[in-house]
Amino acid sequence: MSNRITPRSEDFPRWYQDVCQAGDLAENAPVRGCMVIKPNGYGLWENIQAPLDRMFKETGHENAYFPLFIPKSFLDREADHVEGFSPELAIVTHGGGKELEEPLVVRPTSETMIGHMWSKWIQSHRDLPMLLNQWANVVRWEMRPRLFLRTTEFLWQEGHTAHATAEEAEEETLRMLDIYERVCTEYLAIPVYKGPKSRAETFPGANCTYCVEAIMQDGKALQMGTSHNLGQNFAKAFDIQFQDVDGERKLAWTTSWGVSTRLVGAVVMAHGDDKGLVLPPRVAPVQVVLVPIFRKEEERAAVIAEASGIVERLKQAGVRAKLDDREQLKPGAKFFEWEKKGVPVRLELGPRDLADKQVVCVRRDDGSKTPLPILGIEAALGDLLDEIQKSLFTRAAERTRAQTSRAGSMEEFERMLQEPGGFVAAPWDGTDESELAIKERTKATIRIVLDEEAPEGACILSGKPAKRMALFARSY
Amino acid sequence: MSNRITPRSEDFPRWYQDVCQAGDLAENAPVRGCMVIKPNGYGLWENIQAPLDRMFKETGHENAYFPLFIPKSFLDREADHVEGFSPELAIVTHGGGKELEEPLVVRPTSETMIGHMWSKWIQSHRDLPMLLNQWANVVRWEMRPRLFLRTTEFLWQEGHTAHATAEEAEEETLRMLDIYERVCTEYLAIPVYKGPKSRAETFPGANCTYCVEAIMQDGKALQMGTSHNLGQNFAKAFDIQFQDVDGERKLAWTTSWGVSTRLVGAVVMAHGDDKGLVLPPRVAPVQVVLVPIFRKEEERAAVIAEASGIVERLKQAGVRAKLDDREQLKPGAKFFEWEKKGVPVRLELGPRDLADKQVVCVRRDDGSKTPLPILGIEAALGDLLDEIQKSLFTRAAERTRAQTSRAGSMEEFERMLQEPGGFVAAPWDGTDESELAIKERTKATIRIVLDEEAPEGACILSGKPAKRMALFARSY
Repeated sequence: MSNRITPRSEDFPRWYQDVCQAGDLAENAPVRGCMVIKPNGYGLWENIQAPLDRMFKETGHENAYFPLFIPKSFLDREADHVEGFSPELAIVTHGGGKELEEPLVVRPTSETMIGHMWSKWIQSHRDLPMLLNQWANVVRWEMRPRLFLRTTEFLWQEGHTAHATAEEAEEETLRMLDIYERVCTEYLAIPVYKGPKSRAETFPGANCTYCVEAIMQDGKALQMGTSHNLGQNFAKAFDIQFQDVDGERKLAWTTSWGVSTRLVGAVVMAHGDDKGLVLPPRVAPVQVVLVPIFRKEEERAAVIAEASGIVERLKQAGVRAKLDDREQLKPGAKFFEWEKKGVPVRLELGPRDLADKQVVCVRRDDGSKTPLPILGIEAALGDLLDEIQKSLFTRAAERTRAQTSRAGSMEEFERMLQEPGGFVAAPWDGTDESELAIKERTKATIRIVLDEEAPEGACILSGKPAKRMALFARSY
Repeated sequence: MSNRITPRSEDFPRWYQDVCQAGDLAENAPVRGCMVIKPNGYGLWENIQAPLDRMFKETGHENAYFPLFIPKSFLDREADHVEGFSPELAIVTHGGGKELEEPLVVRPTSETMIGHMWSKWIQSHRDLPMLLNQWANVVRWEMRPRLFLRTTEFLWQEGHTAHATAEEAEEETLRMLDIYERVCTEYLAIPVYKGPKSRAETFPGANCTYCVEAIMQDGKALQMGTSHNLGQNFAKAFDIQFQDVDGERKLAWTTSWGVSTRLVGAVVMAHGDDKGLVLPPRVAPVQVVLVPIFRKEEERAAVIAEASGIVERLKQAGVRAKLDDREQLKPGAKFFEWEKKGVPVRLELGPRDLADKQVVCVRRDDGSKTPLPILGIEAALGDLLDEIQKSLFTRAAERTRAQTSRAGSMEEFERMLQEPGGFVAAPWDGTDESELAIKERTKATIRIVLDEEAPEGACILSGKPAKRMALFARSY
């Protein structure tokens, strides 16, 4: 296990791998494409789950759990869905020592299983809206796995809702997209663009897929979350009908939406630096670490006592604080370790600080070092953590602005994809063909179709009159 | 969907099925042996998870996540383990459109995968103790499935720890057993017996399995949780070695421990009655439901306004309260529904109550109905919920005492298994043969080996001098 972190400028993908390892986030599992999420990575995921779960519940959703295994025949019922997912499926053929009569699919997503159950549960308009969410693992066979970003098994939440009208389904789809935006910006400190995907990038079986997209430090886009308006496609495939107030039987309108452990990878790539992880305070498993410093044994007791007291008071005040009192490690080694792990604030307390009734406070995001009075440290650190959170967002927002440009021609487009990189808005004729041709030529795909009807200018590819502005980027 | 709940006295297993359905806890999935956990059932599970997760973290454990798939060869490394689990495995043979070179097992438990990772992570005594927990789904093919009690897929937590000494591993095994006991008694209001299993009932690969066992209303025992001292068995199989303080390389000592969604079934069978679920307040998803009552439209606004205010104040006070203001249902239908769902307290508020500045308060556990002043209702309901929690525990404890007896001979033993049923303590010669013969003759198994060395009397089966007292029962 090498301790060196490859600089970002040298090799960004390698830097990412190094930081995931140095930050103790995750490792590749002995099963190809799967990962082991270590405590620091899982703690981060728990802190992403908490606000999501709270917001889902505040908007009327309830958690439920549907089976891991889905009969293969269920997927076949929705043509686009089965076509989209077939190449990625893991198949169980034997169970309990016998070959199964019908092979079971390990869920890649649960629209089909939930559609099947809803056809029984939903009978009347009184059963609507049906607002469910599930925290689960899913499996999509991955040929080019990368920790958190693309793994054969990943953890996620999948929301599934059914509504009486098309309007309500569309409102729900957008409401959940807004929640994803809030979690990205307010918790992960990552600014996002949001909007609809092009038809080519739409979820298999959806009428429309909306997404939130962010730019990473290497200028590539990362899809952070998606929210799908499924129209009546799954209601038709699974016969989800209800008797409406007017007495008529109607097909329901459904939605689904999800974010995954990929968001952990987003945090790494949006904020990390050449020293390792840089975690936003609101999702950091440890927000403040206190490293006691002493040379002589007689200094030890007083320093440790004060340090324990400070950490205890911080915990009481709701700060996720930790005292690093390991005896076998020197302070320098501890600094190095917590730096790699991205802990937002490090406090140092030595005999001299003790005499001065202060601690030395070191920010992970900018490396600045300032003394802080022990008296009232809870409030001061609360403020500091807020400030760091804001500062990380501001930095990411400035980077996003600098890496968003607008091209009027293919020449400009290709130049801007190189420099500044990131997102390039360009007029597009609205056809799959042009989108595909642009992708083949530049490796950039449409991340979001911008909300500008009939823009000026001509499609950068075909030269035909533009139908839409689209936000292109090379992406993960 | 029939609304009738079969009385317990008529057919207990049928009653159980009916209550799970009427209480909206879960349903059988279209995949044999699997279940769909509905919001009321999942909410109950979340309220069981929360105190467990808190207690795990308070005792120094961290959450992590290991892959769903395990190479078949990993299981083969521990002889007892593979023998125990082979008949229950689900096997993935195809992934990403191709047949796999090595079949993957869907994890039945994760000792082997974690053992493999630990052989890399654990190098020095400084890496110990390693204290991990995982919340996950596992799959054990089930021939006679029953909702929550035995399902092919179930949700659980599995704790895994590694230690430098045998003593520490044993301490950990017992510490976690104590946490299980606390959650059962303090949260589920279910008294338990705890202690070691006999050799025949030990986890495949463990040196010793400890468990907590409880008695259900039909007199059958349910294993609520297990904690295994794995000795050095998995350390040998996976080469988990560390350099100790004395410089020598040594094998680690490991433990594992788990509880599952089976605990939801335990709550049903320990407390439910012929009207449906009866939920202990500390784990009930809804603790208090308020049903507004009015005949005339002009009464409506005032009743709803006061009802909303009460529910809001209860929520502020930390009570999981719900206002049932559905317009299409009569109050009687609402009472019936919440009764089936086991909500501990129902409040009724009508125009007359409003005038009297009170609500009518109905307890689910004993059906008692008393008026409660609206002023100060938060504190009064907090006390009432505590009282209900205690009362459910007391009732279950009395039943457990009444259904625990002591037999000196096989004749007595068989009579007591009939009446009073439940647990029967009896002298045992300590052999697998006698245990098996008793099981074949009476269907009762050793649930726990009691902590009484060399008891008086002779083994009820063999007549040989008893080595141990054992607690027998018919069980789930």
